[in-house]
Amino acid sequence: MTAPVPPVVILDRSQMAENIGAVARVMANFGLDKLRLVAPRDGWPQERAWATASGADWVLDGVEVFDTVAAAIADLNTVFATTARPRETRQPVRTPRESARVLYDDTASGLRVGLLFGAERAGLETTDIALCHGITTIPIDPRHQSLNLAQAVAINAYEWRTLVLDAPPPNFREAEAPASGDLQLGMYEHLERELDAAGFFHPPEKFRSMSQNLRVMLGRSGFTEQEVATFRGVITALSKGRGRVLERLAREQAKKD
Amino acid sequence: MTAPVPPVVILDRSQMAENIGAVARVMANFGLDKLRLVAPRDGWPQERAWATASGADWVLDGVEVFDTVAAAIADLNTVFATTARPRETRQPVRTPRESARVLYDDTASGLRVGLLFGAERAGLETTDIALCHGITTIPIDPRHQSLNLAQAVAINAYEWRTLVLDAPPPNFREAEAPASGDLQLGMYEHLERELDAAGFFHPPEKFRSMSQNLRVMLGRSGFTEQEVATFRGVITALSKGRGRVLERLAREQAKKD
Repeated sequence: MTAPVPPVVILDRSQMAENIGAVARVMANFGLDKLRLVAPRDGWPQERAWATASGADWVLDGVEVFDTVAAAIADLNTVFATTARPRETRQPVRTPRESARVLYDDTASGLRVGLLFGAERAGLETTDIALCHGITTIPIDPRHQSLNLAQAVAINAYEWRTLVLDAPPPNFREAEAPASGDLQLGMYEHLERELDAAGFFHPPEKFRSMSQNLRVMLGRSGFTEQEVATFRGVITALSKGRGRVLERLAREQAKKD
Repeated sequence: MTAPVPPVVILDRSQMAENIGAVARVMANFGLDKLRLVAPRDGWPQERAWATASGADWVLDGVEVFDTVAAAIADLNTVFATTARPRETRQPVRTPRESARVLYDDTASGLRVGLLFGAERAGLETTDIALCHGITTIPIDPRHQSLNLAQAVAINAYEWRTLVLDAPPPNFREAEAPASGDLQLGMYEHLERELDAAGFFHPPEKFRSMSQNLRVMLGRSGFTEQEVATFRGVITALSKGRGRVLERLAREQAKKD
């Protein structure tokens, strides 16, 4: 068994440096240390973050910055988006306790895992949620839903640490490991390119919701690296086939002319 | 079954009004609404608390202020002190999850329950911990123990709400309910007065630690109201007996003179 490697915490477009520092502080409280920022509003580094981290400097010193969520999760196998339960979703929705257990099992199987959090007010984009492998919903009282960002990280980090201290025997994945985020994204983009060329996205303003539905559908199956390669082969075969059909039609047309 | 009544949150000598507001916010997030302050440093009310409560005004509007922890818990039956695990303690030490379960069961049995939190830096006085019925320790990484006050409240409030949403069948108290805090304190003070009169606390600077040990020892047994009355009867009987002995000695001395 691989020792449990804590999840990477990814903050999408966080606004206040003070909040980034408060997040670093609770991460350190509960033994997490890898923090990634996606497009922080005020750039990075920000002195005010260190002022509110209460000494958890090693977390801030090790921060990595990315332009997009896709880039920030490119090397991770399992990422859960922390957000309110969406009205309709085809992604699995878990409590922080259930999510910690899945991440614990995955990391024991050698996978790299992460937790994605949205901006203070805006939350996460649905396109970014669709890149994740599940949704974590904190059981907030519906009468007062405004949960502070650092508190959301704290609840999840606390569940992780509680689980690690309990050290239950991990449930190893019986299936092979899912491919990393960049391989998954490459597959989605390949599919969408070919579908777009085939006029699948009609009308064009439907592209966003249609591609998200596809990503969520396919994402649930947790393709392995090999399966990603196989599926890309399928996309290529189908689209080349379409090309050949078009060529044949063109040839037949030419004969008639 | 009585519906579960959330624990009262008691903040001892909190310093920053912003933190009181942040505590109110997380209480509202997780469905708690009764907040009591013991000797807040800057007095009460403080506008800055409302500014950081993010709309959880009803919690702040209902705040009650007390001079001492003893007064703040006088009407409660079961109170847990949230603090780092003491090196030596004879009080039960529980995780937030275990504590939530005990409080849940107690409130289902009709008891009034609370959670006590210390000042931002100073923490709780051992004399105040000794008035409680157990210790709740959040499983913090020992490498970074500085946990924000609102985070400590959040973890406990989250465990409460998670339990209430699960709605497990409560374990009713088989024993009778413990007496309220004021009856317990009255008994302790009665005992200490009489012991002091009897010269028990020797040398006098030992009073504090000796009385605390007594309170912790007796507190563990969870005396019912009837038992408190009985024990006070015992104290009175013993001390009057001593009074009679002293009277007899005085009479004998008088004869000799």
